[in-house]
Amino acid sequence: MFAHNKRLQYTVRVSGPNPGLANLMLEQFGGPQGELAAAMRYFTQAVSEDDPGRKDMLFDIATEELSHLEVIGNIVAMLNKSAKGELAEAVDTEAEMYRKITGAGNDSHITQVLYGGGTPLVNSAGVPWTAAYIDSITEPTADLRSNIAAEARAKIVYERLIALTDDPGVKEALGFLMTREVAHQKSFEKALYSMESNFPPGKMPVDPRFSSVYFNMSQGPGEMRGPWNQGPQWDFVTDREKQMAVDGGSGEAEVKLPAADIEVLKQMQARTLSDPSKDPQTGAELGLDPSTPKGASAVSKP
Amino acid sequence: MFAHNKRLQYTVRVSGPNPGLANLMLEQFGGPQGELAAAMRYFTQAVSEDDPGRKDMLFDIATEELSHLEVIGNIVAMLNKSAKGELAEAVDTEAEMYRKITGAGNDSHITQVLYGGGTPLVNSAGVPWTAAYIDSITEPTADLRSNIAAEARAKIVYERLIALTDDPGVKEALGFLMTREVAHQKSFEKALYSMESNFPPGKMPVDPRFSSVYFNMSQGPGEMRGPWNQGPQWDFVTDREKQMAVDGGSGEAEVKLPAADIEVLKQMQARTLSDPSKDPQTGAELGLDPSTPKGASAVSKP
Amino acid sequence: MFAHNKRLQYTVRVSGPNPGLANLMLEQFGGPQGELAAAMRYFTQAVSEDDPGRKDMLFDIATEELSHLEVIGNIVAMLNKSAKGELAEAVDTEAEMYRKITGAGNDSHITQVLYGGGTPLVNSAGVPWTAAYIDSITEPTADLRSNIAAEARAKIVYERLIALTDDPGVKEALGFLMTREVAHQKSFEKALYSMESNFPPGKMPVDPRFSSVYFNMSQGPGEMRGPWNQGPQWDFVTDREKQMAVDGGSGEAEVKLPAADIEVLKQMQARTLSDPSKDPQTGAELGLDPSTPKGASAVSKP
Amino acid sequence: MFAHNKRLQYTVRVSGPNPGLANLMLEQFGGPQGELAAAMRYFTQAVSEDDPGRKDMLFDIATEELSHLEVIGNIVAMLNKSAKGELAEAVDTEAEMYRKITGAGNDSHITQVLYGGGTPLVNSAGVPWTAAYIDSITEPTADLRSNIAAEARAKIVYERLIALTDDPGVKEALGFLMTREVAHQKSFEKALYSMESNFPPGKMPVDPRFSSVYFNMSQGPGEMRGPWNQGPQWDFVTDREKQMAVDGGSGEAEVKLPAADIEVLKQMQARTLSDPSKDPQTGAELGLDPSTPKGASAVSKP
Amino acid sequence: MFAHNKRLQYTVRVSGPNPGLANLMLEQFGGPQGELAAAMRYFTQAVSEDDPGRKDMLFDIATEELSHLEVIGNIVAMLNKSAKGELAEAVDTEAEMYRKITGAGNDSHITQVLYGGGTPLVNSAGVPWTAAYIDSITEPTADLRSNIAAEARAKIVYERLIALTDDPGVKEALGFLMTREVAHQKSFEKALYSMESNFPPGKMPVDPRFSSVYFNMSQGPGEMRGPWNQGPQWDFVTDREKQMAVDGGSGEAEVKLPAADIEVLKQMQARTLSDPSKDPQTGAELGLDPSTPKGASAVSKP
Amino acid sequence: MFAHNKRLQYTVRVSGPNPGLANLMLEQFGGPQGELAAAMRYFTQAVSEDDPGRKDMLFDIATEELSHLEVIGNIVAMLNKSAKGELAEAVDTEAEMYRKITGAGNDSHITQVLYGGGTPLVNSAGVPWTAAYIDSITEPTADLRSNIAAEARAKIVYERLIALTDDPGVKEALGFLMTREVAHQKSFEKALYSMESNFPPGKMPVDPRFSSVYFNMSQGPGEMRGPWNQGPQWDFVTDREKQMAVDGGSGEAEVKLPAADIEVLKQMQARTLSDPSKDPQTGAELGLDPSTPKGASAVSKP
Repeated sequence: MFAHNKRLQYTVRVSGPNPGLANLMLEQFGGPQGELAAAMRYFTQAVSEDDPGRKDMLFDIATEELSHLEVIGNIVAMLNKSAKGELAEAVDTEAEMYRKITGAGNDSHITQVLYGGGTPLVNSAGVPWTAAYIDSITEPTADLRSNIAAEARAKIVYERLIALTDDPGVKEALGFLMTREVAHQKSFEKALYSMESNFPPGKMPVDPRFSSVYFNMSQGPGEMRGPWNQGPQWDFVTDREKQMAVDGGSGEAEVKLPAADIEVLKQMQARTLSDPSKDPQTGAELGLDPSTPKGASAVSKP
Repeated sequence: MFAHNKRLQYTVRVSGPNPGLANLMLEQFGGPQGELAAAMRYFTQAVSEDDPGRKDMLFDIATEELSHLEVIGNIVAMLNKSAKGELAEAVDTEAEMYRKITGAGNDSHITQVLYGGGTPLVNSAGVPWTAAYIDSITEPTADLRSNIAAEARAKIVYERLIALTDDPGVKEALGFLMTREVAHQKSFEKALYSMESNFPPGKMPVDPRFSSVYFNMSQGPGEMRGPWNQGPQWDFVTDREKQMAVDGGSGEAEVKLPAADIEVLKQMQARTLSDPSKDPQTGAELGLDPSTPKGASAVSKP
Repeated sequence: MFAHNKRLQYTVRVSGPNPGLANLMLEQFGGPQGELAAAMRYFTQAVSEDDPGRKDMLFDIATEELSHLEVIGNIVAMLNKSAKGELAEAVDTEAEMYRKITGAGNDSHITQVLYGGGTPLVNSAGVPWTAAYIDSITEPTADLRSNIAAEARAKIVYERLIALTDDPGVKEALGFLMTREVAHQKSFEKALYSMESNFPPGKMPVDPRFSSVYFNMSQGPGEMRGPWNQGPQWDFVTDREKQMAVDGGSGEAEVKLPAADIEVLKQMQARTLSDPSKDPQTGAELGLDPSTPKGASAVSKP
Repeated sequence: MFAHNKRLQYTVRVSGPNPGLANLMLEQFGGPQGELAAAMRYFTQAVSEDDPGRKDMLFDIATEELSHLEVIGNIVAMLNKSAKGELAEAVDTEAEMYRKITGAGNDSHITQVLYGGGTPLVNSAGVPWTAAYIDSITEPTADLRSNIAAEARAKIVYERLIALTDDPGVKEALGFLMTREVAHQKSFEKALYSMESNFPPGKMPVDPRFSSVYFNMSQGPGEMRGPWNQGPQWDFVTDREKQMAVDGGSGEAEVKLPAADIEVLKQMQARTLSDPSKDPQTGAELGLDPSTPKGASAVSKP
Repeated sequence: MFAHNKRLQYTVRVSGPNPGLANLMLEQFGGPQGELAAAMRYFTQAVSEDDPGRKDMLFDIATEELSHLEVIGNIVAMLNKSAKGELAEAVDTEAEMYRKITGAGNDSHITQVLYGGGTPLVNSAGVPWTAAYIDSITEPTADLRSNIAAEARAKIVYERLIALTDDPGVKEALGFLMTREVAHQKSFEKALYSMESNFPPGKMPVDPRFSSVYFNMSQGPGEMRGPWNQGPQWDFVTDREKQMAVDGGSGEAEVKLPAADIEVLKQMQARTLSDPSKDPQTGAELGLDPSTPKGASAVSKP
Repeated sequence: MFAHNKRLQYTVRVSGPNPGLANLMLEQFGGPQGELAAAMRYFTQAVSEDDPGRKDMLFDIATEELSHLEVIGNIVAMLNKSAKGELAEAVDTEAEMYRKITGAGNDSHITQVLYGGGTPLVNSAGVPWTAAYIDSITEPTADLRSNIAAEARAKIVYERLIALTDDPGVKEALGFLMTREVAHQKSFEKALYSMESNFPPGKMPVDPRFSSVYFNMSQGPGEMRGPWNQGPQWDFVTDREKQMAVDGGSGEAEVKLPAADIEVLKQMQARTLSDPSKDPQTGAELGLDPSTPKGASAVSKP
């Protein structure tokens, strides 16, 4: 069960209203690397987890991320406080209101008009949050890696937001949130390696014929090798012929069909046959500019 | 520039039509952990990457994932081949067609009716693919971790699909695809650790007061400690008071506002004041069942 | 700040595994009327709210909804527990696994294959949760009405889920959750009517010429009147002519344009002119079945 | 059946082109509180409704909302008329065109480049309309409340748009649309209370043990009580212990499993066991900056 | 302005309830090729259109498509009528209700539980309608072609639905709707060719060096030529070298940067340098099963 | 199988960094008419296609579109190159960074903050790409028309982008991409008309009673006729009565129900009956401003 205390995990002190900056901050409120994504990622994993250690850790961190969602939400609310009031009470002349909403350095209209200077779960472009951002699949050797990566990404987005403001209170609170992502990443790393064997992930053995091959699929200027494809552990395959049909078969797709189905497919093929032997007149040709001189058309071969 | 050869990277041999299984296979065609997501994840990173080694590797793997997309797409197409023909030519009686489309073990109607037994970019529930599945943020210390996690997830989803079919040709091709995810994960691991310093990700230093604290936010039955929150490297904070306002402040949010804005906000507060002193009649009370005896209503306090 | 205790708000006792039922229960986990939608609806309102009474109430109820999300998530997790294990360890023969995943009364493949028998934030059709479900606009006279409606909808979806299961433990926990929606609705009703004036919502006065008119836009069989359009407070307008251009103008749209723009528009109109005087041959006519006898074609006028 | 007359329900007179303002107006064309959402909300309810009075009313209002969609669409079209022509005919120099599209007070590029100065079904941020905005569930005691709330929200968004423009023709047409939302809200209120008993919504009785309890889940500074949680009709529960496991049980989740499944789960737990007793080296530690002096690292405990 | 008459454009006579079939029919109610998509496609084009002939035609057909939306909606409502009642009143035992909702030949739970047997704007998989389905771009030479294609697609989806039912009333109404798509396609074809020049679409001339080249990008087994790439109007380029850098340049991407930016980029490259010379230990290697014998691991080169 | 060469199909030479222009270019990278949509449209059709000629052509063009995706992606990457570096290394003062990100003529913050100056698969408004943009339905007479229309739309969006920049290298590369859309449209036209009969699309015959009728659904000012609704091939129906119930029936919807279901429906109707005879007090009336003088209220009839 969750409980709440109206004191924040970190005090929020904002120097002054700034709806444009509020809009940018939404990235970590309702954006893909933001705190709701983090909280829901860990919470849903915690609910399905059976290992008691991981379950406890996941609930700890999920709960803290919810508290971070509240901190970033309060930053947005403070930055928007004036805008919210002005919009609700419509005290400015229209021209001034329009200028405020759409002026340089401020495309906050996205959140002002629809959301009234509130704290909606959208990213900084106004795209609503979606659970498609969460990539958990209920297998700890994969999900812990996903969590490690998610913390790394969130750390970077905080870096960028910190670089965009000189309000010291906002910088300080963002610095706290950024730091906590690093601490969480450390915990998830420890949890991953507390599983005796975590690579390859899952249970099913791989096919040893293909697990150490590196296919050099992109060739031409700028090729370069490194430990990711060279050294004794790698077979490096650059011959195009050896990259195709690596099972030694035809490289084609086939299916065994009942005779009746084959008949139906023949019928379909006859109906939809593309006759390569004729050069039919087309709709495009009907629509060509009639004044185009023959042979000189921009759309014919010059 | 991309080039294409109609030979597949791996030969696809399907034992017989099975639209229900085709539907499940769509998970790795147009699903979040599928091959389009993989190909686009690496391709878009490659385009923006400036480090020549990583750029080359990302194009190599992106191109191979496109070739995998083609392999899994051909599995779907073969499994659907009869359905496509029957649907296009409508040879069955209606009752039989309806039974085939919706029968037990087969909810392939989702892809049959709309997509005609084709190979749409949807997951096994029919949800269209979205770029919201891709979490790249153009910072290699984060993106390589995201790629490692993505390969781990894809490996697991292939495990599950292999466990669902006993068609030997399908199992074999899926086994190839599953194995390649492991090989790719190894390459991304090597690339990550080829960066001399990759943790913490990014550039900005963390706040040392908070980078080694573990907040025990979830308490009660089932608590358990491990290397993720115990040992000399961790400060373990379990006191609820010490989890709040960790900066030592009030734990409240505040913003300095111009005097004019304060006036507007007062006006708004007056207009929208919630008066706690009265007990107003509500719309719900208007709508209560008039036959409910006073004091016995299911919605009143018993 | 949020805190968590691993004891649930309501004990969950499930009689046995049932992935098909788990799938249905997801409706209230990651569906539009579910507990995440409720929790986030009230939490985001709470963060932006300035009235202390409403703010406190919104945090109270948001926190309880998060606790409900945990209860319904645990119901899903218990119903899926066997499936999760079988899928991860792949103990069955493939044929049996396929039958289990896709068999009659069970389309749980949607959540099994991708989410591994976990607790994803999707609805019962596998559609990921989106913040587009949340309709808050940061104006209490509107948002409280939205909350009242949201609780009413959630109550009904719980009714339907209760009607679908005879597992007594599941029914009991769902009954608790359903009841709490009613209690919350009562609180929101009280909060709405604690505002001295809440109708019309907002601040701007309406145009008295149109605020009591009822336009009878749908006519024909089945017309019926009631208090929503009859009585002394309504002007009932049924004459089609009087429903158009109700301002007394032309009913057309116009804009004053600079002369230069008018020239450009003329140029565009000339380029894209649709000449009504000719009967051009079309692409469709090019594609008509050549064997169609003149005058007898199914696509010509009979 | 629908019929159409090219006269608008309200004459649209726009003072001059303004693509930036056009963009804002899209909020009520293709946004969540806009006219398409309203029209489709009532139209789909009307189609499924069996009560003749409500069905007639829903068709009346749905049809009017379609006519409002046309009015707001014409406002957008008039404001965009010059932009559409200039873009189609490309008469400006490139620099001027770029400045017009992206200049201060005008982020209309979103709709200009892709939609050519047309009237797309997107909100003011360019997010396409989705039926996820519609919350109808085919139960009148819930849907009428949803309709009441939807009208309240739409009224507020019109207030905000009116406050953003000083074009008198636009203000006048928006004022008409805003007023009609209030009239519709009145009709839906009448229809709701024309049902003899509409609260609690639906049919299933609530559990009287929990229908009048208020759980004080959010505590700490700023607590406040009011009619939503005090008075004789409420049980106010503030003790954290009494908020958990309110059924009197353990507060845990359990499921009865077949013996075979228990074996599988044990196997899974063994495979994915998190061993809390060791302190494993992690990938993050591999990636630490090698120049970091021991004990001084920003990521170790200071 | 729209008007409505409660008589349908086509009488709907359904032989009996069938929620499974209702679900399939949703494809043309709220699916991508369905009637809402058609109506909104033409309506939004009509609003922005300046050519009087096309504008009138677009309103005519948009209005008819809305009337078709009503017809298909009524088919769904009739097929769902029993389900709606049973669900609302919960008259069956739970086991029977569950069987009805999830039984073979019926995955209607998607629409039953959430939407209560109503007529939601979702496709047959339960995916909500989105304006992303509409591809209008406010240029008639493109939009009319889009409309022609949309009518062709809708005709085919109706074919498939007709093939799935033997209810004569449903077949008859669907046949009407299917036929109307063909009639509309004919109108759009006539409108397209009423523009004197409609190909190439738009205004800007193409580059004659590339407008008649066909790049043979896919080679290998199964190559075949036809009028789409052979004949005097085509240059057929099959040499891979001649497909790259067709402008005669380097085939590389370059940008001129200010000196200061070049310094920053060097700094970034140094920080994120991937050192190809070392073979670093990786996180994956840390996680390898410790019992794996050296040289025999499934994940090492065999 | 796909192969890749790091040489582009067209050399990209950008005059200087311009993140605002980069944002606009994303329209053809991750937007609905962009190159990913094109590549995936043709690739997925190719995979399911059985006709060898069309299959080969679809793979040719799909592969070229992937190569175009790479070209437009490189344009974005070059325009963003400075921004990417500055953001990663945070070299500016905060104020300058904020100004750069949000300044006039530049709303690139959408892609800068979240995507770090990379090349994300979003449109110019930051909306992620979705497979809902692809309208293929696996029937060549429809899909080829969809492809023709898609090429026409893409050509137009390139026109608009070319009109927005005066960077000669960008204009030149965009001109190449624009021209190729026209060449592809020509190929698809040839392929469509290589099918002997392609209209009406599909196989099922239409109902001759309705295939040549034009319903004049939109009447009033501005009516105009042309070849799309006049001439001997059309029946033009303008009488409203003759537009309804065109089958000659009642224009109503009906379903035959089992007696038990009829009983349930009666019960539901009784429970949810809307009583038209009373004028109930409503929640709105409870919330009216108490100071409103009777009869003078803005919300009452004046």
